[in-house]
Amino acid sequence: MTLTTAAILTLPDFLAHWRGHRALTRRVIEAFPEDQLFAFTPAPPMRPFGQMAVELLFVGEMTLTGLSTGRWPEPDWASGPQDKAALLQGWDALTQRLETEFPGVTAEAFTRTHHLPWGEMPGWVAAIYAVDNEIHHRGQGYVYLRALGTEPPAFYER
Amino acid sequence: MTLTTAAILTLPDFLAHWRGHRALTRRVIEAFPEDQLFAFTPAPPMRPFGQMAVELLFVGEMTLTGLSTGRWPEPDWASGPQDKAALLQGWDALTQRLETEFPGVTAEAFTRTHHLPWGEMPGWVAAIYAVDNEIHHRGQGYVYLRALGTEPPAFYER
Repeated sequence: MTLTTAAILTLPDFLAHWRGHRALTRRVIEAFPEDQLFAFTPAPPMRPFGQMAVELLFVGEMTLTGLSTGRWPEPDWASGPQDKAALLQGWDALTQRLETEFPGVTAEAFTRTHHLPWGEMPGWVAAIYAVDNEIHHRGQGYVYLRALGTEPPAFYER
Repeated sequence: MTLTTAAILTLPDFLAHWRGHRALTRRVIEAFPEDQLFAFTPAPPMRPFGQMAVELLFVGEMTLTGLSTGRWPEPDWASGPQDKAALLQGWDALTQRLETEFPGVTAEAFTRTHHLPWGEMPGWVAAIYAVDNEIHHRGQGYVYLRALGTEPPAFYER
């Protein structure tokens, strides 16, 4: 496949995309009853949504660090927040980091190869995977919420 | 927000992204038992996955047409396939259209404004929304499959 050099996406476009999805995921986390977030699963062996959201938080942190610095240290997956308040606090801390650190990400970081714990890939692939993985698990969270009798936030609002 | 002109994504990158997700969604459709695809829901009022997949097919068709021609005619949502074989046939027909028609999509189609049935937006936003919506509903399909006792295809394989 021949790569063209025409720009179809800018850094601010990508930031807006990522930021919008993270805002929606935050509303989904908030929509869960406190006592169900880290406990409920409608379809074992699927994890409770809180555990998925910790993964999303860690992958997000790693992706921002990786795009900014080229280093992708694997997080300690078992070390995450274990209740809703701590999860939202971590979520908001990464939101703040995005605002301050994303301006330091270069376009070149999206086109060169990065070494992730799960393989080598262009920065674009690593970055969009983080967002896609968030959409994927958040979509699962929508089913969890419906199974709990709660109407999820509107998907098209970011 | 100031837009930069640096390319972080090319047309072939986007095609590979879209194509990879559509291949995974096809495997998820295939994984459903024929008699459950358009019937089962684990959390009413959520739709059966077959109905969601028809929406994804129609949005995909509309998005390819829109990016290629600038026209976004709203599909007749009630006119879609109603069984697994017809759904997969429609899915594969769009895959073939992507291969032949996407090379006619210009980078400019991603940056200019399009008029969709649900509002005005840049081509990039319209295009990535189609993929995101597919990831979102397919993630829901994963829960449906688990609730049916079926292991879904691996998310990271495209």
